[in-house]
Amino acid sequence: MSTFSDRLSRAVAANGSLLCVGLDPVPERLPAGLARDASGVLEFNRRLVEATADLVCCFKPNLAFYAALGAGGWDVLAATIEAVPDPVPVVVDAKCGDIGPVAGRWAHAIFTELGADAVTVNPYMGSDAVRPFTRHADRGVFLVCLTSNPGAADFEAAAVEGGDRLWERVARRALEWNAEHGNCGLVVGATRAESMAGLRRLAPELPFLVPGVGAQGGDLAGSVAGGLRSDGAGLLINASRGVMHASEGADFAEAARAEADRLRREINRVRGVAQSG
Amino acid sequence: MSTFSDRLSRAVAANGSLLCVGLDPVPERLPAGLARDASGVLEFNRRLVEATADLVCCFKPNLAFYAALGAGGWDVLAATIEAVPDPVPVVVDAKCGDIGPVAGRWAHAIFTELGADAVTVNPYMGSDAVRPFTRHADRGVFLVCLTSNPGAADFEAAAVEGGDRLWERVARRALEWNAEHGNCGLVVGATRAESMAGLRRLAPELPFLVPGVGAQGGDLAGSVAGGLRSDGAGLLINASRGVMHASEGADFAEAARAEADRLRREINRVRGVAQSG
Repeated sequence: MSTFSDRLSRAVAANGSLLCVGLDPVPERLPAGLARDASGVLEFNRRLVEATADLVCCFKPNLAFYAALGAGGWDVLAATIEAVPDPVPVVVDAKCGDIGPVAGRWAHAIFTELGADAVTVNPYMGSDAVRPFTRHADRGVFLVCLTSNPGAADFEAAAVEGGDRLWERVARRALEWNAEHGNCGLVVGATRAESMAGLRRLAPELPFLVPGVGAQGGDLAGSVAGGLRSDGAGLLINASRGVMHASEGADFAEAARAEADRLRREINRVRGVAQSG
Repeated sequence: MSTFSDRLSRAVAANGSLLCVGLDPVPERLPAGLARDASGVLEFNRRLVEATADLVCCFKPNLAFYAALGAGGWDVLAATIEAVPDPVPVVVDAKCGDIGPVAGRWAHAIFTELGADAVTVNPYMGSDAVRPFTRHADRGVFLVCLTSNPGAADFEAAAVEGGDRLWERVARRALEWNAEHGNCGLVVGATRAESMAGLRRLAPELPFLVPGVGAQGGDLAGSVAGGLRSDGAGLLINASRGVMHASEGADFAEAARAEADRLRREINRVRGVAQSG
């Protein structure tokens, strides 16, 4: 199997896109005409994937939204991942973090049972909570580093011994884990554009998964300009609600496509500027 | 609905126990005679619960082991929780940690869909990743604080501005969250007995969920002596593999019961010492 990095690069090139679309469906918020249950969620996801798969570099379903469906949620997630066409990879956003034997079961669940290309991992518990994921050399592992929510100030931004912020220490450790199998990335919120350029200097090669654009009010242009890798890629700019709920009507798929294309072009415009600047 | 704290106290009193049994089944490790699939896992869990329910203060299934079953895993977890008799509460060990709207979906999944009494939460992302759980005033929320694994040295034990270790800062914030609805606790590994007494001074009232006894080599007596609350309770001492796999034969339930009773008595012996000391 090729590496996650290879698969991501192929999708970026094929679709000319750094846009990642989050698939975080809530039954009560499905567009008119869809059943407000697991079957409606699956139809919603399939139509979103079909409408946007040639405009994105990856899809990112968050596990919480499938767990919240109760019985049947797992099947909806598996079928959603199955519906994503080549060459687009899938990141399961689960923010796992547990001791080795437990992390090994999460890796089995997400990589083997679901067949996901990558996962998000919470680094709080340290190396042995991370390595059961990274040892799968053909899969990607995005470490939660600096997030877009106000609570990031509580612990992530704390100054730690040695002069770093905690999130900088996480990024430095991610470089060490990445040296083992070359399959690490960082989750960096788009409301943190001021920190993005510094993080790019610290980790010149790692892909950054960037949530927070759209509903969370993140700075798209600043994030792209600050976070772009020297090869003009290295970013997965995620939009969830803005694309999923571009229209609440029966035209939701067309509206999602239009919004995804708008975001893709806006990102590419800044990429052009950043690349020539 | 009563509070988690009330339900836990009732179980502690009814069973004279601070023992929590972890339900973390792996199909390949099921005892002889059980099908090595989801149906075998459910039978294993039901017999473990039946054999030990009058010896414990709670059960703790870890979500990873059910996700690793793939399709059908959720139903096994729901049926396992359903099989736990009153008055014993259930903590779902999921170590969730995500921004508010996502955390809200996790809370719905675990509290509403599964009907769990409590959950474990990873605090890395801060307050707004925690409050969607704690606002359910009738449920318990155990914040991952200081864990039993070697990787705890990477971030948890980092010295942060103000002189605290990161895990001490987490404990202090847990006290603030607890002030809102009185439903917080801390996850503190049993290999950290030397820190347990200090943590008890810092958080005199919070319940501590203590994994790491048994297979992880934690210090049971030291943890109990150091962590006991002034009322002689306030600890949920978790054993998973040591109880689940006390025998690999057809007598696994009897062996699990014997091991659970041994642990319960050992804990109570130290409680007696600590209470009179």
